[in-house]
Amino acid sequence: MESSPPRRVHLDNGGRAPWHPLAREAFLQALDDGWADPRRLHAEGRRAARLVDGAREAVAAVLGARTEEVRFTHSHTAALHRAVLAGAAGRRRAGDRVVVGATERAAVLHAADAAGRRETIPVDRLGRGDAGAFAAAVAGPGVALAALQHANGEVGTLQPVEQVHDAARAAGVPLLVDAGASLGHARVPETWDLLAADPADWGGPSGVGVLAARGRVRLPDVGPEDAEPWAPGGVSVPLAFASAVALESVQADLDAAGARRRELVDRIRAVVAGVPDVEVVGDPENRLPHVVTFSFLYVDGEALVTELDRQGFAVGSGSACTASTLEPSHVLAAMGVLTHGNVRIALDRTTSAEDVERFLAVLPPAVERVRDALGVRGL
Amino acid sequence: MESSPPRRVHLDNGGRAPWHPLAREAFLQALDDGWADPRRLHAEGRRAARLVDGAREAVAAVLGARTEEVRFTHSHTAALHRAVLAGAAGRRRAGDRVVVGATERAAVLHAADAAGRRETIPVDRLGRGDAGAFAAAVAGPGVALAALQHANGEVGTLQPVEQVHDAARAAGVPLLVDAGASLGHARVPETWDLLAADPADWGGPSGVGVLAARGRVRLPDVGPEDAEPWAPGGVSVPLAFASAVALESVQADLDAAGARRRELVDRIRAVVAGVPDVEVVGDPENRLPHVVTFSFLYVDGEALVTELDRQGFAVGSGSACTASTLEPSHVLAAMGVLTHGNVRIALDRTTSAEDVERFLAVLPPAVERVRDALGVRGL
Repeated sequence: MESSPPRRVHLDNGGRAPWHPLAREAFLQALDDGWADPRRLHAEGRRAARLVDGAREAVAAVLGARTEEVRFTHSHTAALHRAVLAGAAGRRRAGDRVVVGATERAAVLHAADAAGRRETIPVDRLGRGDAGAFAAAVAGPGVALAALQHANGEVGTLQPVEQVHDAARAAGVPLLVDAGASLGHARVPETWDLLAADPADWGGPSGVGVLAARGRVRLPDVGPEDAEPWAPGGVSVPLAFASAVALESVQADLDAAGARRRELVDRIRAVVAGVPDVEVVGDPENRLPHVVTFSFLYVDGEALVTELDRQGFAVGSGSACTASTLEPSHVLAAMGVLTHGNVRIALDRTTSAEDVERFLAVLPPAVERVRDALGVRGL
Repeated sequence: MESSPPRRVHLDNGGRAPWHPLAREAFLQALDDGWADPRRLHAEGRRAARLVDGAREAVAAVLGARTEEVRFTHSHTAALHRAVLAGAAGRRRAGDRVVVGATERAAVLHAADAAGRRETIPVDRLGRGDAGAFAAAVAGPGVALAALQHANGEVGTLQPVEQVHDAARAAGVPLLVDAGASLGHARVPETWDLLAADPADWGGPSGVGVLAARGRVRLPDVGPEDAEPWAPGGVSVPLAFASAVALESVQADLDAAGARRRELVDRIRAVVAGVPDVEVVGDPENRLPHVVTFSFLYVDGEALVTELDRQGFAVGSGSACTASTLEPSHVLAAMGVLTHGNVRIALDRTTSAEDVERFLAVLPPAVERVRDALGVRGL
């Protein structure tokens, strides 16, 4: 009797995970009921509009926001762009400085450059932003906007958003909290003025993002005039609906899924730390439950990803928050840790202990093979 | 035995039609095979990338373009915005004038205003652009870009894109052809430098658009730096794949579906012309096969849409190319025809002769009821 090949294990679920089964069901239901244009007056249009409004309401309930404060955008990146560009434009009278954390997504850094003068607040070696430096910067003159992620999606470190929000509020500066790596995995505090989130990260679809803005925040148009400036041309109603259904479902299981994955990550951290010449990065305690990143000396990241892929394991590498171009990650660089030879693991809710053990059995010899090929054995 | 209620008839399929059955199948297949991020290096990412590339290739074949000239955007509107903003930015040295037709989509008009100085070329009473005036305008000094739709989605009139492209080429000015209302319904000429199209209009999904640019056209970044400036954050791979499959399918049946719908529209035009105080607008010959619009004197458009909706018929009204806000349509205004009390019919491929006859039986008394309610009988 031949044994079937072992099933493939996907450990690259940060920013893009397989759809939650309920998201698929919700999508198909909304495709039947909500294919029409929600701006139309007829019954089909009104039904589509009700689906979008229901989805906004569901997301708002999770965020602690009002329904009218939540909009669907075309992507998480589009939500970040609009939050920074329009958020800064709405505060032009105050100035043009945009204060951001050093490990924000590339979308935030680039949008801050486009919106005005970017001021970047450093992080420590664990990737945690300096709340004191942030508070001092937002209290300075001419600050239009501040942006701090809730958690870094590349290394998992949680950021001091409550403290920074206190300081921003005292200075009258709106704070954008990027919850793109955390919503659906960890409880997101309600200390934000603008918030962006990523359905594809929590088991919903890609091609849709979330932008929430408190009623007090001004978001003037920054592109050509459009009836839906947050998503010109509108978003897919079925994608928006599926996003909300997935979020409600993962939110209901948040603590259990978090505890289970936290244990698996602890196990990965402990075993990987035993591989020679490795650095396990990110805050070991104050972190996302499902993400862990480590960097190997004398290893090329692309070669290691390819070797693990051949063995049946999909992992992330390089600057996971921009694209897998394997450019040196600005996040790891800002932390002052090894920027090459890194692997990011982001566990899905369906990742089992057995999957993890199989990976941990395969990883050390894979690293050794890649080092051998580079001729660095014994260095 | 009770008779079942007559099935609802949806006659508002311009810009948003029910998904083609093959689009649904393709979506589900791509959801299984292409949920991953196509920028990743592992097998799942490479498979997703192959699906997108295959979809680009299929659309390119229909357009007479090379695969690398075709990109998926987040919506048809987003494609128009980028084409105008980046197209004009890429020609800044030539000048900042943007020459557009008077009946272009609001997205083109607004983007032209944002990109530079808009110069608007009038249309005649049938909605056809003045090719001579267009040629004269593009030959003038300081023109960065010209834009002309292949067909107007609100009234169906085809535009002289070949003639205008000849003139634009002679002047060295890139021409954007908006095929958003025609691709999938009529043969689109290959006389374009930039082309935008709308999957939701041909039975594909909404939440995705098409932007094609000939290799010679420069499209510099106009927003924050991004790896995919045509769709920051990426598009949904399953939506893109479903779009392409739907297009291949409708393209294979283009002539037959066109001829069948053209006959039904001829029938609608003939019967509606017999209603008192009505104007059937748009070119009766040189037009899209499936679109017809008419305007009734002494009728409020919203009231008529609502009355028809109650009778089981969904129709469009108002400025169908922006939103159904029922603002007076800039298209009808540019044509110099009645801007109020209008109804737009866009037939789906599944619309039957029986559907049309039922609609034509219901329409005249519905108009009469709305006029009665307004107290204009006998005016």
